[in-house]
Formats: sequence, C-alpha cells, structure tokens
Amino acid sequence: MKLTSFSDYSIRVLVYLSINNHKLVQIQEMADAYGISKNHLTKIIYQLGKMGYIETIRGRNGGNRLAKAPAEINIGELVRRTEEDFYIVECFSNNHNSCPIAPVCSLRGIFNQALNSFFSVLDAYTLADITSNSMELQTYLRKPAIEAERIE
Amino acid sequence: MKLTSFSDYSIRVLVYLSINNHKLVQIQEMADAYGISKNHLTKIIYQLGKMGYIETIRGRNGGNRLAKAPAEINIGELVRRTEEDFYIVECFSNNHNSCPIAPVCSLRGIFNQALNSFFSVLDAYTLADITSNSMELQTYLRKPAIEAERIE
Repeated sequence: MKLTSFSDYSIRVLVYLSINNHKLVQIQEMADAYGISKNHLTKIIYQLGKMGYIETIRGRNGGNRLAKAPAEINIGELVRRTEEDFYIVECFSNNHNSCPIAPVCSLRGIFNQALNSFFSVLDAYTLADITSNSMELQTYLRKPAIEAERIE
Repeated sequence: MKLTSFSDYSIRVLVYLSINNHKLVQIQEMADAYGISKNHLTKIIYQLGKMGYIETIRGRNGGNRLAKAPAEINIGELVRRTEEDFYIVECFSNNHNSCPIAPVCSLRGIFNQALNSFFSVLDAYTLADITSNSMELQTYLRKPAIEAERIE
C-alpha cells in the first residue's frame, strides 16, 4: 500500500518551494538537493504547474515558485489530485473489475469508508503545517543528499 | 493507491469459504467461480494456511475450509498481514529512503496518522460482517464469472 512517486515527489517539490518562498528556484537545484533526476522533476513541475500549484517564469533569470500561499495548499486535496486512482481493491474500478460478487459485496463500501477516513486526516493539514520548521528543513536541504544521510 | 492482489484475492477466498462453511472446497471450484487462475489461488491458499486462516485436508475427498469462525477473522488484521508493506511514501522505509529531509519532516507522522485512521475502520469489521448476506453472495458465485458480469 503506497502512493505513487508522483505524489511523493510533488510534496517534496512544494516543500522546497515553500521554504524558499520569495526565490525563483531552478529545477537543477531541487534535483541536486533531493537526489532525484532533473528529467523526472521537470515532468512533475510541469504537472504541478498545470494544476495551479506552481508558477514557472521562463528566461535566463527564471525559475519556479509557488503559485499559492502554503496555507492554501491542502495536503488531502493535493494527494487526491496527484494519485492516479484509488482502486484499493479491484472492484473500485467499474471498467477493470472481474470479481463476480461485486454487485452484492459490502467490501467496497467498507474500503471506501476507510479511504475517506485516511483523507480526513490529510485534509486537516496544509503545506504551511509541514513547513513550519522551515529552518530545520533548510539545513537538511542545503547539504547534498548523500551528506544528509550521514547526519542521521 | 491500492492493496496488493494478494490482499484482494485473500479476502475473496475467505468469503468463498465462509459462505460454504461446512464444505471442503476444492481450489478449482474457487478458481472457476472467481475467474482467477488455479495456480495463483494455490499460492494464496498456501499462505493463508500458514497464517492460520485456512485448513487444508489432503486426499481424494480433501479440500479447504476456514480454520476459524468468520466472526474471529478481523478485516484490519487480515489486511495488515497480507500487505507486503505500508510504505505510503519513501521515508516510511528506513532502508530505501533517499529523501534528505526525512529526519526533520513531519510528513511521515501525518501519513502514519492517516494510515491508522484507515485501519481503525477496517478493524471494526470481521469476515462475518462481510458475508452476512451469504445467500446473495452465493447466487453470484454459483454463476461462472462471465455470466455474473452480464447480470449487473
């Protein structure tokens, strides 16, 4: 049971931009800080831009910044948008379900209830809550990824 | 965000055995009812046997049956045992985490809280709850999988 790497990396990007609030950040800088390929991050930033979370300024002095205040970026809403699907079990998908008892089975309802409960926790947090210790986060992000591992 | 097919199919097997409570069930019969390969189900039944959920009687008149009463099979506990891991995001795994901010990031705590909330819903249900409409479930399981799709 895990989220896609798109969700995971999207949160990391937004955390990075949040603690560098007034700065235009290059993709390469985030790639170096997190040890994630620039190519991969470029695609993620493009998607986050389309979703309205990030603003990209083109040109030599350009870069990326948050398009909203951190307190306006809700974690539950973000994860709902970055996850591909929530097909906890096969019968969540009408198109790909092959389980013959789906029409009379209560399992889907129970898992739906569990999923709602999962999200009701995430809905209580915003990016501002996650980055409230921005000084500490910054310390770990200034060191190359490999160095940060050694600190632990 | 999804469970493994092992969790999904494990529940289906236990549902089948629950509504055929006093009968020794052949793997082929369940494979036909659900449209899942016999090979795949054989592995699942072996694992569920090791976990103490299923009893397998060998020999010509043998078969499989529940090793516990349906009311004693808790869905939360079952899913905790059938899922490989709960690495919602990368930092849940101490061995495979590459995120440098993990030591000072509050995200893991928030996702842990969400995961606990997910399971507290599942913990409230047993196999007996899921199979309380056993007559209806039986109707759908008696038809070959392809027929059941047409009924919908």
